[in-house]
Amino acid sequence: MTLFEVEPVNPRLEAEMTRVKLVVAYDGAGFRGFWPNAGVATVGGALIVALEQVLSTPITLTCAGRTDAGVHAWGQVVTFDAPSHRLDLDRLQASINTQCGPAVVVREASIVEPQFDARTSATSRTYRYMVLNRPYPDPFLRFTSWHVAEPLDLRAMVLACDPLIGSHDFSSFCRRPKPVEGQGPASLIRRVEDARWVEADDDLLRFEITANAFCHQMVRSIVGLLVDVGRGRSRAGDVLGLIRAQDRTNIPTPAPPQGLCLWSVAY
Amino acid sequence: MTLFEVEPVNPRLEAEMTRVKLVVAYDGAGFRGFWPNAGVATVGGALIVALEQVLSTPITLTCAGRTDAGVHAWGQVVTFDAPSHRLDLDRLQASINTQCGPAVVVREASIVEPQFDARTSATSRTYRYMVLNRPYPDPFLRFTSWHVAEPLDLRAMVLACDPLIGSHDFSSFCRRPKPVEGQGPASLIRRVEDARWVEADDDLLRFEITANAFCHQMVRSIVGLLVDVGRGRSRAGDVLGLIRAQDRTNIPTPAPPQGLCLWSVAY
Repeated sequence: MTLFEVEPVNPRLEAEMTRVKLVVAYDGAGFRGFWPNAGVATVGGALIVALEQVLSTPITLTCAGRTDAGVHAWGQVVTFDAPSHRLDLDRLQASINTQCGPAVVVREASIVEPQFDARTSATSRTYRYMVLNRPYPDPFLRFTSWHVAEPLDLRAMVLACDPLIGSHDFSSFCRRPKPVEGQGPASLIRRVEDARWVEADDDLLRFEITANAFCHQMVRSIVGLLVDVGRGRSRAGDVLGLIRAQDRTNIPTPAPPQGLCLWSVAY
Repeated sequence: MTLFEVEPVNPRLEAEMTRVKLVVAYDGAGFRGFWPNAGVATVGGALIVALEQVLSTPITLTCAGRTDAGVHAWGQVVTFDAPSHRLDLDRLQASINTQCGPAVVVREASIVEPQFDARTSATSRTYRYMVLNRPYPDPFLRFTSWHVAEPLDLRAMVLACDPLIGSHDFSSFCRRPKPVEGQGPASLIRRVEDARWVEADDDLLRFEITANAFCHQMVRSIVGLLVDVGRGRSRAGDVLGLIRAQDRTNIPTPAPPQGLCLWSVAY
């Protein structure tokens, strides 16, 4: 470097970035799912608009679970990088909640290590699915549960959970993802750690399932089958065979989206 | 009566009437209150349309509480007379729920004595009001609670309930009803049997109040004052004086309707 050259400003130094983690709850009813998609209302899209306005910088978001249209979350996790000098977590959380709330609410905001990633760092996800099982519906649960009027055999539904535990190819329960050019078919093997029914309240059944990851429509397809077992149309003893068949055509219609909620993510 | 006269058919005998009681739950968000009002969506209007269609006869409805626009009910009670020969309670309940549900749901249907009246036979009504007290809102409680972000002093709010108990003229808490021609001003004396705050869930406060009857906007005005006490703007020690003043101008704005629910009616 001669005396006449000016040392260039390092843009990385000028805008040092900090990785931020948000825990987000949302009512999925008004959104076409989480993942940003031009021209439609998505939760991720709403968050990005708000974040970019507060932080005055383009934001790239990563999330723990790409919930479908109409699916809710209590503990969705997102990460992104923000310019360190503009970062005030309390103000950030308050601003996002003013802009996106009350349908989308940031419950927690924290600074994490730069290598922490909402998707790849997650070790497991837990989903909950609510079934209201009584003859008449409930005006206050209609946006967060599936109303099944005919009596369900809970014992059979509990038995039908057992074969789900463990590592399986869940092709029978998933929409096959579009193949990526130059890659082989994506694996649909997932490891289910826990799957159980809980009697949550009067006539209200809650299904809880934890896995390392989920493929598309997996939980709703599983609940569709388990409720079919509860109705006596499928048998608990058939579940293992249906998994092994790796054939989606024999599985009942997936349960509707409004009963499903991404409950929590473990890291 | 001569041989040539035909005995007239007694229309009362032809259509013997049975009094029916319904317990109704509804999400008040989409309605301009309970009481039927031409040209606007009301819960009572929706029930009458459905009942008249099922029973093929004009229906006159009585209700236990004329809830306001946006106010919910879990245990609203209505009574009406139906032609005995057309009455099948199970079918009636199912038909109403198909037509009006899931926003309006008949929870119970029963036959009662002809002198039983949803309004005049009621000995007390219980309302609940939900307050979510934390910095950020909840996507799933936004239609059924009032979100108050600033911390509330629950102890002061509990103390402020005591002066409400007993018989008082609640003019300070009620919209004065329109005078009926030829009658003196309506009494706004009501007997409050119980009024208490319950910590219902994490950050969720539930106010429960039971009285022989309520006047217009009484519960919402009381909750508005109690939350004002919780905020430290009014004092618990002032409540008795505010009741005795019989002056609405010193009472804070009524709490918003979506937190209020007609919980139950006693007979």
